[in-house]
Formats: sequence, structure tokens, C-alpha cells
Amino acid sequence: MPNDLRKDGRTASQLRPITIERGWSDQAEGSALISFGKTRVLCTASFTNGVPRWKQGKGQGWVTAEYSMLPRSTNDRMDREAVKGKIGGRTHEISRLIGRSLRAVVDMKALGENTIVIDCDVLQADGGTRTAAITGAYVALADAIEWARTKKFIGQKSQPLIDSLSAVSVGIIDGAPMLDLAYVEDVRAETDMNVVVTGRGLFVEVQGTAEGAPFDRAELDALLDLALAGTAELAEIQATVLGPGE
Amino acid sequence: MPNDLRKDGRTASQLRPITIERGWSDQAEGSALISFGKTRVLCTASFTNGVPRWKQGKGQGWVTAEYSMLPRSTNDRMDREAVKGKIGGRTHEISRLIGRSLRAVVDMKALGENTIVIDCDVLQADGGTRTAAITGAYVALADAIEWARTKKFIGQKSQPLIDSLSAVSVGIIDGAPMLDLAYVEDVRAETDMNVVVTGRGLFVEVQGTAEGAPFDRAELDALLDLALAGTAELAEIQATVLGPGE
Amino acid sequence: MPNDLRKDGRTASQLRPITIERGWSDQAEGSALISFGKTRVLCTASFTNGVPRWKQGKGQGWVTAEYSMLPRSTNDRMDREAVKGKIGGRTHEISRLIGRSLRAVVDMKALGENTIVIDCDVLQADGGTRTAAITGAYVALADAIEWARTKKFIGQKSQPLIDSLSAVSVGIIDGAPMLDLAYVEDVRAETDMNVVVTGRGLFVEVQGTAEGAPFDRAELDALLDLALAGTAELAEIQATVLGPGE
Amino acid sequence: MPNDLRKDGRTASQLRPITIERGWSDQAEGSALISFGKTRVLCTASFTNGVPRWKQGKGQGWVTAEYSMLPRSTNDRMDREAVKGKIGGRTHEISRLIGRSLRAVVDMKALGENTIVIDCDVLQADGGTRTAAITGAYVALADAIEWARTKKFIGQKSQPLIDSLSAVSVGIIDGAPMLDLAYVEDVRAETDMNVVVTGRGLFVEVQGTAEGAPFDRAELDALLDLALAGTAELAEIQATVLGPGE
Amino acid sequence: MPNDLRKDGRTASQLRPITIERGWSDQAEGSALISFGKTRVLCTASFTNGVPRWKQGKGQGWVTAEYSMLPRSTNDRMDREAVKGKIGGRTHEISRLIGRSLRAVVDMKALGENTIVIDCDVLQADGGTRTAAITGAYVALADAIEWARTKKFIGQKSQPLIDSLSAVSVGIIDGAPMLDLAYVEDVRAETDMNVVVTGRGLFVEVQGTAEGAPFDRAELDALLDLALAGTAELAEIQATVLGPGE
Amino acid sequence: MPNDLRKDGRTASQLRPITIERGWSDQAEGSALISFGKTRVLCTASFTNGVPRWKQGKGQGWVTAEYSMLPRSTNDRMDREAVKGKIGGRTHEISRLIGRSLRAVVDMKALGENTIVIDCDVLQADGGTRTAAITGAYVALADAIEWARTKKFIGQKSQPLIDSLSAVSVGIIDGAPMLDLAYVEDVRAETDMNVVVTGRGLFVEVQGTAEGAPFDRAELDALLDLALAGTAELAEIQATVLGPGE
Repeated sequence: MPNDLRKDGRTASQLRPITIERGWSDQAEGSALISFGKTRVLCTASFTNGVPRWKQGKGQGWVTAEYSMLPRSTNDRMDREAVKGKIGGRTHEISRLIGRSLRAVVDMKALGENTIVIDCDVLQADGGTRTAAITGAYVALADAIEWARTKKFIGQKSQPLIDSLSAVSVGIIDGAPMLDLAYVEDVRAETDMNVVVTGRGLFVEVQGTAEGAPFDRAELDALLDLALAGTAELAEIQATVLGPGE
Repeated sequence: MPNDLRKDGRTASQLRPITIERGWSDQAEGSALISFGKTRVLCTASFTNGVPRWKQGKGQGWVTAEYSMLPRSTNDRMDREAVKGKIGGRTHEISRLIGRSLRAVVDMKALGENTIVIDCDVLQADGGTRTAAITGAYVALADAIEWARTKKFIGQKSQPLIDSLSAVSVGIIDGAPMLDLAYVEDVRAETDMNVVVTGRGLFVEVQGTAEGAPFDRAELDALLDLALAGTAELAEIQATVLGPGE
Repeated sequence: MPNDLRKDGRTASQLRPITIERGWSDQAEGSALISFGKTRVLCTASFTNGVPRWKQGKGQGWVTAEYSMLPRSTNDRMDREAVKGKIGGRTHEISRLIGRSLRAVVDMKALGENTIVIDCDVLQADGGTRTAAITGAYVALADAIEWARTKKFIGQKSQPLIDSLSAVSVGIIDGAPMLDLAYVEDVRAETDMNVVVTGRGLFVEVQGTAEGAPFDRAELDALLDLALAGTAELAEIQATVLGPGE
Repeated sequence: MPNDLRKDGRTASQLRPITIERGWSDQAEGSALISFGKTRVLCTASFTNGVPRWKQGKGQGWVTAEYSMLPRSTNDRMDREAVKGKIGGRTHEISRLIGRSLRAVVDMKALGENTIVIDCDVLQADGGTRTAAITGAYVALADAIEWARTKKFIGQKSQPLIDSLSAVSVGIIDGAPMLDLAYVEDVRAETDMNVVVTGRGLFVEVQGTAEGAPFDRAELDALLDLALAGTAELAEIQATVLGPGE
Repeated sequence: MPNDLRKDGRTASQLRPITIERGWSDQAEGSALISFGKTRVLCTASFTNGVPRWKQGKGQGWVTAEYSMLPRSTNDRMDREAVKGKIGGRTHEISRLIGRSLRAVVDMKALGENTIVIDCDVLQADGGTRTAAITGAYVALADAIEWARTKKFIGQKSQPLIDSLSAVSVGIIDGAPMLDLAYVEDVRAETDMNVVVTGRGLFVEVQGTAEGAPFDRAELDALLDLALAGTAELAEIQATVLGPGE
Repeated sequence: MPNDLRKDGRTASQLRPITIERGWSDQAEGSALISFGKTRVLCTASFTNGVPRWKQGKGQGWVTAEYSMLPRSTNDRMDREAVKGKIGGRTHEISRLIGRSLRAVVDMKALGENTIVIDCDVLQADGGTRTAAITGAYVALADAIEWARTKKFIGQKSQPLIDSLSAVSVGIIDGAPMLDLAYVEDVRAETDMNVVVTGRGLFVEVQGTAEGAPFDRAELDALLDLALAGTAELAEIQATVLGPGE
């Protein structure tokens, strides 16, 4: 692993400063404003009784997510998808990733016929928005579930949360594997991978893409090592923020 | 004017606590996170050279605005307009109001062939989102114009800003005129009016609607008095935030 | 008030020739083809039993409106909104204004669980289309309600109409307040205001906009005076058209 | 041919009362409000210099048409296509039919690089709206072309109009061929045919559909006979309305 | 009828080589891959119990069709309608034609409250795609109905198929009537007609259009003769493919 | 690796029967109809001179892809995305995956300012449609590039193809890793991974998802082993089909 410092002074295996402002919203059942460096994502969890029609009558709950970027979250202003009248492919893809990932740590039987919608709105983007979104979404989700148990929408003995969940990006830049890429790094990466891992260290999603040159098995292994270390660190931060009560 | 305190302890002619976090965004040329009580709106101003095709070759600039609410900014989660594939009437109406209001205090000749897009995204809604948006948008706009003068996209001797601008809602509740309605007050109001006023105290927009009972001339006059007082107070807060340099 | 005649020979406080062709449609429950000078709007009222889902079970009715312009109602042909695949902001705004205004003079309890949809289609446009639409819509609405009473969809003793309703535009041109602006006047107006008033002279909507220079309190007062006089005249014309039976 | 009178007193080979109000619009270069009985269609022709991109540089003009029905032109109110956000198949089909038919009588070289858009808006529908639209559209088109010759957008010696054009519906009801079906007849017809014919009696479009039972060659022949007679009558009415000057 | 051979060596009254690959799909209840020369259309019939809401409770079935072209079925790649977000007029028109034509040979009572959706996807286009689609769709429909009788979704004694159905295009090229136009012929045709005929030789649809010069009654007659001969030939090919069991 | 045979008689590490019909289309510059068992995808490559606006002037080419399923490619008929008016998230995601993967083996400089659009239309679906699409798309792409070299749109000495490309799915079923999942296997898989690999055995995409239980590092390794073996086999089939000339 290279010792060389990165532009922002980090080592290759170092996360950016992570902050999680739990309960940011007065309205949502669970919420978190998460920062991975300058990347800031507002995650809210909306709990409602009942499930979509195609899930009804099975005694199971549903968790889904929507991801979006504010038009000026980026360096150049993007047109709003609402104005364009359709959701872009990237937005769809990330929304689906977040929802699928969260469902992997929820016991739908224990949730009962209730729905939790997670909204991840990127207020400012500097790389890693989808991994910040997943990491913050878990905190919002945990709080919404706790709220529902308090309100007795979920039985006191049920615990729908099977495990915790966090995500991080890794990539190969100038041949060197690096953790948690900022935007300027992301555009230079030959290979870019997003990894979603549970608190117990099991993989939920592994999405690696050769942006530049295809990668070999050894490079893949090095990236997976970095990602497991990074998500373990994030899981600790989440645990601290959520406290012993969770 | 009634002396009775409101639910949140205010008198009829009192604004909610107002805060303006100037320069919230690292990306935008101008930005402000404004709060009117629990209502929080992120306003960004994006400056670009050039104007839309239909304005080209006239030596004049263009200012426009887009308003949107995050899905869980409200008590019940709303569907995203991007997901529905179209912008609702209310969103259109408010976006047009904000853009039109701001243009009233900008000298388009002095701006030159440049465009400023103001995005007002409601992060949390508790009544008065459009008036908070206009008041915050002015601050973002002022900073974007100052940025452009520093960058020499606008001549040092030109001052496109003719006047400052703020807005407030007023309404009649149980027969009594009230300033700056919170959401619980707004739903009870018989008449609801949004007033946009310049720093010199001139009207830019007067939009009054009888939600319950139609109103007479005397009631209209009382509402206008309240609105002029409220916007004068907001103009002072803006001036303090922007400092003497502006 | 200036005595100078306008381009079409009117004084500042004079309406254009107003005609209302009641019962123009063989299909609708109520209809009127209204002209404000060259502005011609076909208003139809469609009465149906039942209300939208969100109003059901409350014993109340619903009134809504849709406004649209034919593509060649204007001097330059406009693209159809159906072809563009979405409704523009202006159309949304005016549709909402018409519906909201009409509801202010309808007792929803007396209407019972019935819905009236008002369609206002501008066949020819020469300024003031929204105010002509509201004034004609009231006549169509009154006839649809009378039809429903005859058909016993509404009790014979119920009278859902609380008051009559008309609307007019006013504006400041070259510093002078003027009533009922034609298109050539509208584009020159510094300030433009649409005012909706009941037969008893109460305000339902006041929508004033500084297109050019912001306006002061005295100008606002002069415009309101003109609007009250103009709508009173329109209310008389409506009463004559509808006859004593209404 | 049956002698039996129809519900409205016509014989099988009789048109409904036809009226054409030429020049109904103050805005369009050509216009006609046409009635086939209770069916009323407003046809406007908009002339503009230039042609769509794909026609440029060929020295040829372009003629196209758009058909639409007002929501309450029919007995039950239909949703607006603009509100639904898309044009229905029937609307598309009829718009294409009208445009294609008109182009058959226009010499595109003589028209030069100019575009004429015909709008046919059905104000009231009682069967035969597409044939009324074509018949009225021809009158609007003829006036727009005359206007352009007067304005010298088309050379004085050029005559883009090759022939006149009218259309009528025919159908088989209870085994009997009938001309110009009203709505109550149209729904009962086993076979329904729309025929577009030039002033010289040549076919431009023949669109026959077995709504009920398939039809044989003899029935087809009888329908074509009726249609040729009906369109000849319409051509005479058009000639009278347009006068000798055309 | 001219004896001159066409570019592909056919006489004026000769069909292109016709092949029908019955049962191409492992998934659909009925299917056929049909070729008219280089034109290849995949037709599938999807049988489901139940009918759309507006047909319910009448004891009748429903048959409908959707037509589409793959983006590179043509010589130049076309944009996908799904990407454009709307169905074009031509697609709508042909889908409606196919569905309407098939319904003419189905006894909806005998079909019972079941729905058959026919999908006609053009894999390669060389003229006559709509007529190939109808001819292939009939084979897929026949198989889906036979499947439903085997599965007892339709009574063994019921036979919803009243007659067989095929379609062919005819046109006038350089004054000569021709059968089954290939693409290079279609673009040269002065008049183009699509004719849908039952196995018994009755007309279901006659759609003739003067693309170039309007046509007279004698030309129309010659085209109808050719079409009847061509569809009779197609009906024989269908019968051979379907075999005696049908 | 388990020896147990699968439902279709394969061992865990066996591909389904693979067939590639090269040059299926008469229209496209390159094409292939590929089958992975019952999954059949038609891949066409459309070559055009020029690049999208945002790529112009850089001397580089562009390769993109669109994926779509015919409505009855699946066991239950799906609604067409064109009819729904928008592309679904899954379709977007797979289109992006195919385009991104292909670009990894193309030297854009060598391609010059030319665009290749790959269309992958699923005619029949039985699992693994995206991996079949990528594998077939490579063959179509190779032929389109060869076509362009023959036509001299690309220099004879340039070889834009850097490597070959194939893809396969792998998954864990009842704890056992399996290659090339058919639909019935796919729905049972706890973990599902799509892997895109070059002819030289380098990774281009690794997309693993825990559909059921999260997976550990050892399971991930076993899946990657299977995928590398499967794609090596597919690369040999491609080489045979394309022949020595490529």
C-alpha cells in the first residue's frame, strides 16, 4: 500500500472526515445528515403502515429508497430530473442499489406489513455520494424502526434489523488502490468499486467497473481488503452515533 | 392589532426566528440556508456566461428560479415530481413567482449577457416556504453578482442590483390579521396573502387569496400594513448578513 | 384618472364591449361563449355525480377548472401543450386561479357529493383571457347548478351559489391606472393586476405584479378602485344574461 | 337506395345542414368555423416563412395539420390530452389524415419554402368530425394561400392550389348505405368509411372499416357512389363560400 | 396487367416469397415468425383470463394488438419510442389497425371473458410490415385460441374464430397496379393501399392513400382486384401452415 | 464444486448450449442472434460517421448500447416501456452496463470520430439476458468495425478492438456456486453475480448482489473462479464464429 499522501493529505487507506448529524429532520421518523468530506447527503426514513399492493397479505414489510441530487450539488449546475420529466439511468441505478442493500439487513417478517421509504438527497457532491447515502440511510432506517417499536407499530420483541450496513468506494489510481475517493480522484481512477458490507463483515454488494484499464485478480483482492477495512470503520462510527440503546 | 399570543408565543405582528447561513454551499457562486422558524430552504445561485437563445444579442442578462420541496420536507411524504414525470401546478407557480420577483430588482443591462439560476430547495417545510425562498434567494443572488464582479464577468462599475428584496406571508385568522404564518396557522387562515417588497418599501408582488371567506377593503389594508412592517424587518436582517461591502 | 382616450377609443375606466352567449353548447350542462372585445372564451360546465376519492364521504361537492388556449388563438401560433406532452406553468397557474375563485362562491355542503368541472378554452386571445374566463365560467356554473336542481341531483331547497363572481384586469400604463387591458396595453403595463370580486363587492383574489417598476401604496389603491368599479359592471351584465329566474 | 327517412328526417343520400363561417378568426391567415349539423369545427391556417429542417433547401413548402377535441365537445367530458401528457392514437391518426389529404391538392414547388399549419379544433362533436375538419380546413387553407399571395410571400403567378378538397363519411346501417353519419348512426353502422375527394372527383383517401360485419364488393361500390355524390355537393358549397375571386 | 418484371424479378401480381415459422416462441400461447421477402415480423399472442375493466360483466372477450419496429429493423437506425417517451402516430395507427382487423374475425361471446394481446415486432423491415403483421398475427391468434380450448379456458364446442384473415399492400407505380410492394417500390408508389380480407373474401379494411396523384375509380377497382387475389393466396399458405386440425 | 446435475442436466460449472448466428440482419453493419439455452437476444451494431456533440473535436469515437425486452419474451407478458412512456430502472441499468463494458475493449482514438450504437433486443428470456447480450454484442461490434475498415471509414492500419469481451452470470444456490443460471435457478439464488471479462482474462465488470443472504470472501472467490472459466469458454466460441480473418 503506498505511503504517499493524497491531495487532501490522506493516506491510501484513510477515510475522509465522517460526520453524522442524527435526527436532522423534525418531520421524518428517522433522519441523518451525513458528510464524507465535502459530500453531504440528507437521509430521511418515512414509516407508514401498509405495504404496496403486490406485497399485501404476506405478513411482510417493504423497504425502498430514492436517491436524488440537488441541481447545484455539483460544480456545474445540472438540470432537474423533474424538469426533464424523467429519471436518468444513473439515478435509477443508485436508488435501486440503496434499496436492495438496505433490504439485505431487514427481516421483513419482523417488520410486519409496514413500509419504510428512505430518501437520500445529495445536498453537496464530492465523490462517493452513493456510499455516503447508504451509510447515512442505515442510521435513518434504524431510528425509524426504533420509532415504530416505541409507537407499537412493530412488536416490542421483534427486531427487524438483522445487522448494520455501511458502504465505501475504492479505486485504483496510478496503479495504487485507494479508499473513499473524492471527486478529483474518482475521475482519475482506472477502476472504481463500490462495496456494501454488513456490520459482521459480509458482502451485500460488490460493484466494480474498469473505467480505464481492465483489472486482474490481484488488484480486485487488494480493493476488497481496503473496502472491508473502511466499512468496519464506518460501522464503528454508526454504532457510536446510534448509541447503546439501539 | 390583537395582543393575544399565538401557539408559538408570538404576537400577531411578530416574525418567527429568522436565520440566514450565507455561503452554505462550496459549489455555488452564491448560496444561503435560510430558516423562518422550522421552515428551512437552501438557496443557491448559479452564474453562467451567456443567455438563453431568445435573449441573445440584446446585451441583457437573465435571472430565473426553480423551487422544489424534498419529498419528506413535509409531515406526510410527498411523491417526487421527477418520479411522477411532471412538475405540479403549485411548483410551477412558485418558481415563476420567485424568478419574476428577483428580476424586479435586477438591472438586466448592467448584468450583461449572463444568466443566474436560483435554486430554492425546501429541506423542511412549516409554512411560508415561498417567502423564505425569496428572502434567501436575494442573499444568494447578491453573492453571485458580487462573485461575478470580482471575476470581472460584470464590469466593476456596473451594479445590477437596483434594490434588495424580501417577502412575507400574512393572513386573517379568526378575524385577526397575522404576520408570517406557520403551517398550523396557514391551514386555519380565511385569507392568505404573500407580499414581496423591495428594500425601499415598494410592492413587487401582492398575491391575496380568500381561502375561506372573501375579504373586504379594510382587511386588505390591515394585511398590507403588516406585510410592509415584516419585510422591512427582513430587509434589515439581510443587510446585516450581507455586511457593509454589498 | 386620465381622460385621454385609449387606442381603441375607451376612457381609462371603461370596459371593452362585453358579450355573453349563454347556452352555446348542446352538450354541456352549462355553457357560455364570452367576449371581452376580441378576447373570446368558450366556458363549459360539466356536472357529474360523485366526487374525487379524496373528497368522498364528507357530504361535500367539488368544483375545479381547466384553462387552455387554442394554438392559433394568439397572433403567433403556439405549440399545443398536448403535443409538448406537458402543461406549462402559466396554464397551470390560471387553471388553479379559476377553480379556486369559483369555489369561493359555492357552498360545498349544498352542492352535495357532486363534481362540476369548468373548461375555459380561449378561442381568440386579446388580453384578459383569465378574467374573461372567470366571468364566463360563473355563468356556465350557474346554469349547470340550475340544471342539477331541475334534475333533482341537488335538493330544490339547496342553493349552492352563495354569491356571483366576476373578474377584471387593471394596470398602470405610462403612470396612469387603466381598466380591462387589451393585449397591446398589457405588454406596455408597468404593473398588471387581476382582481376577482363577488357580486357583493368582496375580494376573492388580488394578484398584482410589477412587470416594470415596483408600485407604491397609492398606485395599489387606485388600481383596486378601478377593479371594484369594473367588476360591479360585469356583475350587472351577468345578472341580465342569467335573468330573474336565477 | 332506401327512401326511408332517418331519425333527423334526412334521406339516405342527404347531407346534414352545412354552414361555413369563413374568416371567423381575427388572428389566423385563414380560418373557417364549419358545421355539419351539430358538429362544429374551428379550422385555422397559420402561414409562416420557412420550412422544417428536413425540408430545407429543396425549394418546396410544407403543409401539416393538428386535430383535437375540446374536452366537453362530446356528451361525456373527456380528459384533455395535455393533462394526460400524451396524444391518443385516434388523434394522431386523424391529424395525419388531414395533413396528408391537404398535401394532395397543394403544389409544394409553387408554395415555395413556406409552411402552413392547419389546426382543426372540434368545438362540438356529433359524428363526422374528421370529414368536417377536412372540408373546413380546405377553406382556411385557400384563404391563407390567398393572403400569402397578397403579401407577396408567394409569387402572383404561382397557384399552389391544384384542386379543391372535401370529405364525407358513409356507412352501412341495417344493410342500407347512408351518407354523412351523425353520432347515433355512426355507433350503429356495420361498416364505416371516410372518403376524401378532390373537386375534380378523384380519390385522395378511402378508409373503410368493418366495425360489425365484413363487407363485400357490391357494398363497397354503393358506399363509394354515395361518397362521390356527397363530396361533389360539399365542393359546391365551398366554391360558393370562397366566391369567384379564389 | 403489365408483364414487365420488377426489380426483384416478380410480375405485377406476384407476392414475395412468404414463410411462416409457427410456434417460434417457447413462452407465448401462440406465435409466428412471418416473412414477406426480407420483411420479418415476430407475432406473439398472449392469452389471459379476464378482460379490461370497461368490458367486464358482459360475457365477452377482448382482442388487441401492439405493433413496434426494432430500432435497426430499417436501413437507418430509428430512435426507440421508449427512449423518446412516446409512441408515434404511425405506430399508434398500425397497432389500432391490426387489433381492429383481428376483432372482425373473432366472436367475442364465444371467446368469453378472456383477453388476447397480439404483439407484432418488426425484426426487419422491407415494406409491407403492417400486412405481414396482420397475416402472421392471425396464425398466432389461431394457436392461442386452440391452446385455450385445450386448457378448457374456452368451451370445447365454442369456436371464437369466425373466419381467417390476411392482408396485403397494393399500389400504383408508373401507372401500373402492383401487388405486395417492397420498400423501394413503396417509396415510388403514387397510390398505396392496404387491404385486409377474410378467408371468405370479404373486406375488413380498405385503406387507400394518394401519396402522389389522386386516383380514379378504375384504378381503385384494379387495386382491389389485385388485393383480393393476393389475400386469397395468403389464406392458402396460412391454411397449410395451420394444418387440418384447425 | 458439486457434481449434482441441475434440472436441465448440466453440472455446476457447465454453460447452457450456446449458439451465435452471425450476420442475422440484412440492414445492420454488424449483427448476431445469440442463444444461451432458451435465452435469445438479437444484437445489431449501427455504424455512423460523427459523434455526439459533447464528443466532437477530440478525434475520438463513441460506443453506446440500448437493451430492451420484447413484451412477450417472458413467461408473463410485460407492458412495453414505450407504452408506459418511460424506461424502467432495470433497462437503464443494463443498457449502461453493456455500453460501458464494450467501451473497455475499444480504442476510441483508433475508432476516429465515428459512433457505433449496439441494440440488444431480447426476443426470448430465460435468465442471463444481459450476459448473452454482451457476448453477442461483441460479435456485432467486431463485424461493424470490420465493415467500417472495408468501407475505409476507419484506417486499414487502425484496429479499434483491443481485446474480445464476453460475460456470464454465476450464483450461489443452496450453498453451491453455479455457472450461467437459467431463470428458474436465478430466482432461487442467494447471491447473483454478473461478470464481464476480456479475452485475455481481465475483469471489466464485477457486479455481485446478495439477493438472499450476504456472502463471505470465500464464496466470492469461488464465484469469480467459475466466471473466469465460463467466459474463457465463451471467448473461444466467439473466436470460432468470427473466424481467423478478425
